[in-house]
Amino acid sequence: MSLILNPAFARTFAPPVMEARRWLSETTLPEGLSLMNLSQAAPVDPPPASLRQAMARAMEQDPEVHLYGPVLGNAPLRERLAARIAALYGGTVTARQVALTSGCNQAFCATIATLAGPGDAVILAAPWYFNHVMWLSMSGIEAVALPTGADLLPDPDHAEALITPRTRAITLVSPNNPGGVEYPPALLAAFADLARRHGIALIVDETYRDFHTQDGPPHALFTDPDWDESFIHLYSFSKAYRLTGHRVGAIAASPARLAEIEKFLDTVTICVSGPGQMAALWGLENLEDWLAGERAEILRRRAAMCEGFGQIDGWELLGCGAYFAYARHPYDAPSPEMAKRLLAKAGVLMLPGTMFRPDGDPEGAREMRIAFANADVGQIGTLMERLRAAL
Amino acid sequence: MSLILNPAFARTFAPPVMEARRWLSETTLPEGLSLMNLSQAAPVDPPPASLRQAMARAMEQDPEVHLYGPVLGNAPLRERLAARIAALYGGTVTARQVALTSGCNQAFCATIATLAGPGDAVILAAPWYFNHVMWLSMSGIEAVALPTGADLLPDPDHAEALITPRTRAITLVSPNNPGGVEYPPALLAAFADLARRHGIALIVDETYRDFHTQDGPPHALFTDPDWDESFIHLYSFSKAYRLTGHRVGAIAASPARLAEIEKFLDTVTICVSGPGQMAALWGLENLEDWLAGERAEILRRRAAMCEGFGQIDGWELLGCGAYFAYARHPYDAPSPEMAKRLLAKAGVLMLPGTMFRPDGDPEGAREMRIAFANADVGQIGTLMERLRAAL
Repeated sequence: MSLILNPAFARTFAPPVMEARRWLSETTLPEGLSLMNLSQAAPVDPPPASLRQAMARAMEQDPEVHLYGPVLGNAPLRERLAARIAALYGGTVTARQVALTSGCNQAFCATIATLAGPGDAVILAAPWYFNHVMWLSMSGIEAVALPTGADLLPDPDHAEALITPRTRAITLVSPNNPGGVEYPPALLAAFADLARRHGIALIVDETYRDFHTQDGPPHALFTDPDWDESFIHLYSFSKAYRLTGHRVGAIAASPARLAEIEKFLDTVTICVSGPGQMAALWGLENLEDWLAGERAEILRRRAAMCEGFGQIDGWELLGCGAYFAYARHPYDAPSPEMAKRLLAKAGVLMLPGTMFRPDGDPEGAREMRIAFANADVGQIGTLMERLRAAL
Repeated sequence: MSLILNPAFARTFAPPVMEARRWLSETTLPEGLSLMNLSQAAPVDPPPASLRQAMARAMEQDPEVHLYGPVLGNAPLRERLAARIAALYGGTVTARQVALTSGCNQAFCATIATLAGPGDAVILAAPWYFNHVMWLSMSGIEAVALPTGADLLPDPDHAEALITPRTRAITLVSPNNPGGVEYPPALLAAFADLARRHGIALIVDETYRDFHTQDGPPHALFTDPDWDESFIHLYSFSKAYRLTGHRVGAIAASPARLAEIEKFLDTVTICVSGPGQMAALWGLENLEDWLAGERAEILRRRAAMCEGFGQIDGWELLGCGAYFAYARHPYDAPSPEMAKRLLAKAGVLMLPGTMFRPDGDPEGAREMRIAFANADVGQIGTLMERLRAAL
């Protein structure tokens, strides 16, 4: 009996991260060379000790942390997060405009599910985040690539030309994964205006917001009193407080949209994990200074990456920020081939640009994403030596 | 600007449990009468102290519990769960045939997503579990009701007559939510045979398996060496170890199906919460005796429900098992109206049968689901007094 399969799944590629894991398991590193795994967009350390202790206390003393909670999230966390967004970005954001999700991937899936169905289309700046495209593909929604130039910034006029009656939303990621670039406030404002004029949604995934190079608000979209008519903000607690294993993300949108998102979340996960919500709230209440220190360290590493790539012939840095450097490599071979070779020869694992581009886009073959967040400045020095030696 | 909305969401009803919560918040109970909330299919107590302590230790001492894990679940838990299934049901089940999900609702959604797309159909025994129907509705898949008789058992011949070229799966829940009935092994075998003959999947949601009235395996489907060609088993750790807030469910299916499910899970939640997986494994390793005690207590409560309903005129018990009694009420008014009246007059909250039936099915108006799992034998006595007084 052959596998009974939804054709949309047959058409959807497998998680690219697993392919990279397969390379790791199949490759023997050169003698004496330790692995530098620059493939992961996630902290590898657990949360700070103070938070771990608070979570341990909650496990024993707070029965609620073990039980079902409201579908859109616990009220105190929704309140606190809304206040945090309003304080950071300016404007008015209420608890009714905020919901918690089981990670930021789920925030995207739930949002898209309410916006678009099979045959509809969603525009995404490319290079793009592969899980976004996988969800659209599994849902029968067309992922329309909005190519960016050498600066990796999307052009609103170009986007406008791609809008058709089937278009339901534009999705941007800033600071960008995989590109590492930060979209200027004026550019985001232009996209918000574009979305409103065409009656479509603008989704901005701000997973890496806490590591923005600029002080102050990353954009002014929340200061529009009617922001929730078309703007939808996605956020993740995974990076800020190192909670990847607890699955906590968030959405800011209109209460009417959240009522629809509630149908999705109730059916797919019922609620966000209790320890995850407890930890997110504790982090908002207690880890502001700690997070500022984390940001400062990421910015040091970013500076080391920029400087290092500036001194290597052949590599061309296209973007550097969030957790990522995104670069053109100096080789003739396509990027998947080179990713495997750099792993085998230099013990460095990075992801090929083909994972972040539409099939057949020639740009992807020339590009690499280097997730530097887990490499300290000394290790980044080692990386540069290895890349130089591999040339 | 009007809400941009996927029409499949506009057509999908809101979570019924929230409507019941609204009744609670809007109703003033009679003076001196405490609330008996018999609406919830979930434990209201936290996990046993030994497990809470183990979780607290893990929070402080095990960094892995805070970090991303494999999409299909941690290897030791997959191994242990596969062994547990094989030991309980007989037959061969390997770790490659088992995956963890963020709750059993997600197990269903992920499974269906891989099986069926818009325009396809899935057959479900009715009365049905509303979250199943919500997912099908949001996905544009037709939910085909397979009516059951007064014994609440589905008929394979009737099911066969409903199969069309669009049918992708049959979904059964045993022990049944909302009906409380247990499907006999021979009936499940007949459905497995039917599914195989027609090249469709048989999904059996066994969320309440640990509270089965019969000792020994609930069915023999796993003893077929080729079980994974068409049978898909769903399970939940939420009830067994009281982990509702940690979102841990499971799927047993073919490795080929799980490779497709992996695409869904990677995109929607990435992985199951670390504490949830740790707790599920700890429970499998340490809580067998404790769970046997939990089961014995649920069976005592079940016996009290059967006996109590046998002594009340007018109420007709259709099914009693798992966490639920399912009964015809003795009133002329439709069940949603009566549910509200019984809350206001008797302080008892139960869910109306209309929540578990297709729109317009007259049976639903005559039925109530009474989730008795959280009421001890004494409280069940009080329930019966209140129902008698309300007649």
